[in-house]
Amino acid sequence: MAVLCCPSVSVPEHTITMEDTLHLAERLHGDHDQLPLALKLISNTGVRTRHLIQPLERTLRHPGVEERTKVYVREAKKRIPAVVERALKNAGVTAADIDAVVFVSCTAFTMPSLTAWMINELGLRHDTCQIPIAQLGCAAGGAAINRAHDFCTSHADSNVLIVSCEFCSLCYQPDDLEVGNLLSNGLFGDALAAAVVKSHSASGLRLEANGSRLVPDTEDWISYAVKDTGFHFRLDRRVPRTMEQLAPALRDVAATHGCDASALDFYVVHAGGPRILDDLSHFLSVPAELFSFSRATLAQHGNIASAVVLDVLRRLITSGTLRSGHRGIVAGFGPGITAEISIGTWLGDDGGPADDGSASGPDHERTPATTAERSPTA
Amino acid sequence: MAVLCCPSVSVPEHTITMEDTLHLAERLHGDHDQLPLALKLISNTGVRTRHLIQPLERTLRHPGVEERTKVYVREAKKRIPAVVERALKNAGVTAADIDAVVFVSCTAFTMPSLTAWMINELGLRHDTCQIPIAQLGCAAGGAAINRAHDFCTSHADSNVLIVSCEFCSLCYQPDDLEVGNLLSNGLFGDALAAAVVKSHSASGLRLEANGSRLVPDTEDWISYAVKDTGFHFRLDRRVPRTMEQLAPALRDVAATHGCDASALDFYVVHAGGPRILDDLSHFLSVPAELFSFSRATLAQHGNIASAVVLDVLRRLITSGTLRSGHRGIVAGFGPGITAEISIGTWLGDDGGPADDGSASGPDHERTPATTAERSPTA
Repeated sequence: MAVLCCPSVSVPEHTITMEDTLHLAERLHGDHDQLPLALKLISNTGVRTRHLIQPLERTLRHPGVEERTKVYVREAKKRIPAVVERALKNAGVTAADIDAVVFVSCTAFTMPSLTAWMINELGLRHDTCQIPIAQLGCAAGGAAINRAHDFCTSHADSNVLIVSCEFCSLCYQPDDLEVGNLLSNGLFGDALAAAVVKSHSASGLRLEANGSRLVPDTEDWISYAVKDTGFHFRLDRRVPRTMEQLAPALRDVAATHGCDASALDFYVVHAGGPRILDDLSHFLSVPAELFSFSRATLAQHGNIASAVVLDVLRRLITSGTLRSGHRGIVAGFGPGITAEISIGTWLGDDGGPADDGSASGPDHERTPATTAERSPTA
Repeated sequence: MAVLCCPSVSVPEHTITMEDTLHLAERLHGDHDQLPLALKLISNTGVRTRHLIQPLERTLRHPGVEERTKVYVREAKKRIPAVVERALKNAGVTAADIDAVVFVSCTAFTMPSLTAWMINELGLRHDTCQIPIAQLGCAAGGAAINRAHDFCTSHADSNVLIVSCEFCSLCYQPDDLEVGNLLSNGLFGDALAAAVVKSHSASGLRLEANGSRLVPDTEDWISYAVKDTGFHFRLDRRVPRTMEQLAPALRDVAATHGCDASALDFYVVHAGGPRILDDLSHFLSVPAELFSFSRATLAQHGNIASAVVLDVLRRLITSGTLRSGHRGIVAGFGPGITAEISIGTWLGDDGGPADDGSASGPDHERTPATTAERSPTA
């Protein structure tokens, strides 16, 4: 049965705080009649810091889609190797052991996908299967885990590398003044994550079942308007309230596999915003502190799209609170509105690896772990 | 074991002939110093007709990425339902029987993917898994079959719907005058295809194994340059010669599963161009007539990207030449350079369905079957 090993995560070296974001919004949009609303929405996100692949002033300029795509490729190639290396190390495998690579990234489009470059440059075999997914947005972290699970089930004795590369700052649209867009300017952050799913392993998160759910008739609630200037993020004001419909989906998937979604040991859920976590806690009747790792990701990195669930899982594993046999759920939420859900059990290695954050240097500096990250009661 | 049912294919109602294409190239690029080369390359493609979602004069205008994306979505929504309905009918299932939908399309980018719309509008269940793949180009037809195969293996008693939607004419770039681009203007056509893969079926193509291959260091050979004006197709002059490297990949995948790639009963291969088919015939030591269905697709529709392998398979099945127990290979080739390969055996129903082309009306008119399509010796 497929096992998900401890993810590695890296965030870029340029940091922007909540205070910086609010001052910036005031400076840039002082005459916007909905500025007070935008400031309030940003303040309520709970995001304290975010990380950017470029200095702020460069982030704010839009040099065109062609140049932005070049920046995406250049920065991805610079930053992916270290995060992949740590994920492989966490799993105790080498690049040559990998049979498939699932690459999830919704913040630029390239063809071929960077999977081809990874095979050529990172030591993966040339018969590695490529599964690039660009259109599931924040749900793609869950989708990557589930498709890796399926691949490992279908191909005996295989190992699948998951790589998430989200440079949300490359979708900044200076001329887009919708409130949903102003909010997104204060919500999303840049990050990379990687993890290995193995057909067999004595330790890690054993993936027991997966399922998907679409919330009916919400296609336009989270979307990109695709323009000459690239991807313009659209966020409907009804999105934060969708947990009322997704909590039953989590219940269904859990029940199908013999467990009660309200009585699990851990919850690795996408931190799209604070309301999502509050509502999930409410509708599942689960204490809020069980979402503390999601809250910590949101606070320290912002919404890092498909990388969120991998970062939340990393925090959970390295917190030392997991015990062998603990059962929980992994859920990514994103456009569609889509949920990608997985049920799993923690195996062996009580407490997991102490930490996987071994990368150093300015390109891969990680935010130091804080109290919020370490304690499930924070 | 997963079984691929007879695909359905539809091509749009606007037709352009080889002669039209050559005259157009002369009219538009009369002063281009490489026009003679471009005309020769186009003449050599073997493409006799192609089909377009819009009238030619509108196809030639570039109204911007935003408008093109809207055209893509509008035309996809108009044309997908009928091709899906026929694929479901071919498989003897209803929309509610579908557990996952693999959507492959490289000719526009949307988020969410059209998978969400399909679930909402075509009667698929809201727990249908969405697997959108946009970045594998022409190889995505093979990838869709292989990921559907994996899903059916991993999820017992499931049915997967594959939908390919390729509107290559929406990537026409009037100001792009590279020879590779001029050639692509005369090579690619628009089409849609769909097929169902079932975990269990007494008839259809039983999928026995799948594999992938990347030709080393060819990332730039087939690619999109992504610009403010959208996707600009880049085709390296070395591409047509890659079969020397891909033929051994086909041999490897076949040998791993106990068969000789030179002695198979049928070959369902991507028809990127005539050289690919000639070389594959040469390097696999297989008579050229075994690629006649690939040639017929290329001649009648042009290179229809990920839809090619589904159209070739449809032609093979409806040709009446298959016999139960016949073993063959399905191979999609595309950017990377990537090959997605599958080995399968034809089950029961000798000759397959007489024809699946039951859709009518201007939006789904199919090119009538010709002698070339019907006879493996054409």
